[in-house]
Amino acid sequence: MATRTAYAMWQGGLKGQGEISLGDGRCAQPYSASSRFESGPGTNPEELLGAAFAGCFNMALAVRLQDEGFVPQRISTDASTTIEKVGGGFEITSIHLDTVASVPDIDVDQFIAIAEDVKNNCPVGKALSATHTTLSANIADQARLSE
Amino acid sequence: MATRTAYAMWQGGLKGQGEISLGDGRCAQPYSASSRFESGPGTNPEELLGAAFAGCFNMALAVRLQDEGFVPQRISTDASTTIEKVGGGFEITSIHLDTVASVPDIDVDQFIAIAEDVKNNCPVGKALSATHTTLSANIADQARLSE
Repeated sequence: MATRTAYAMWQGGLKGQGEISLGDGRCAQPYSASSRFESGPGTNPEELLGAAFAGCFNMALAVRLQDEGFVPQRISTDASTTIEKVGGGFEITSIHLDTVASVPDIDVDQFIAIAEDVKNNCPVGKALSATHTTLSANIADQARLSE
Repeated sequence: MATRTAYAMWQGGLKGQGEISLGDGRCAQPYSASSRFESGPGTNPEELLGAAFAGCFNMALAVRLQDEGFVPQRISTDASTTIEKVGGGFEITSIHLDTVASVPDIDVDQFIAIAEDVKNNCPVGKALSATHTTLSANIADQARLSE
């Protein structure tokens, strides 16, 4: 078992501002409605959520591929998290993972099936099971889209 | 609508290592099974998930308190995210938010009720609705526990 910590501080109302940091204060960054919904400097919850998902997905995919006999050389994943106004409030309407992997000798269809399963069943994927998530999975020069 | 990006890279199998970064490459940090499950240097998906939740919760709570006529001076929230072995795999079994707020003139019971609602209904709270989340909410010198 591991328990990991993070910290956020906010001062004021809607037009206030705050700071978010990881673990022992690493990566302290400002955040505000501007850094979340416009182009202000700093972080926002959506990129942190995407980073958590992409990081978890990569590690779980590497372990799963190794278990199936295909040790990956490299897995690169971009996460794109979208927040939109829905009804009276805001909602995270999708998180998309775009993965490119170098995995010797694997069949692309087998890779895509494994990657889709890992997206849904890695720890962060399970934690986000109420959220719409999608995946584009690619091997080397082959590209295939999986929803 | 806003779409935010993050990136993760992994090299090798279970004993491999990677890097996670936010947005335009901010906060690039190493990660590995050691930084996730032991005490190795770097980040892990759980602290990123907790940071996303605490940051979203604080901003949403500030806006909600302002809407109710109580502009907060300061909201501080620690997130603790636990990952455990469950059956054959790992699972995020809980995320706990521990909040202390300075909010002039609010009744503590009213504050706790608002904070609990915001935990469940802020954008990241909704995205995590399949996950067990808990909240300790405190005002100034008054302390109360809400599950």
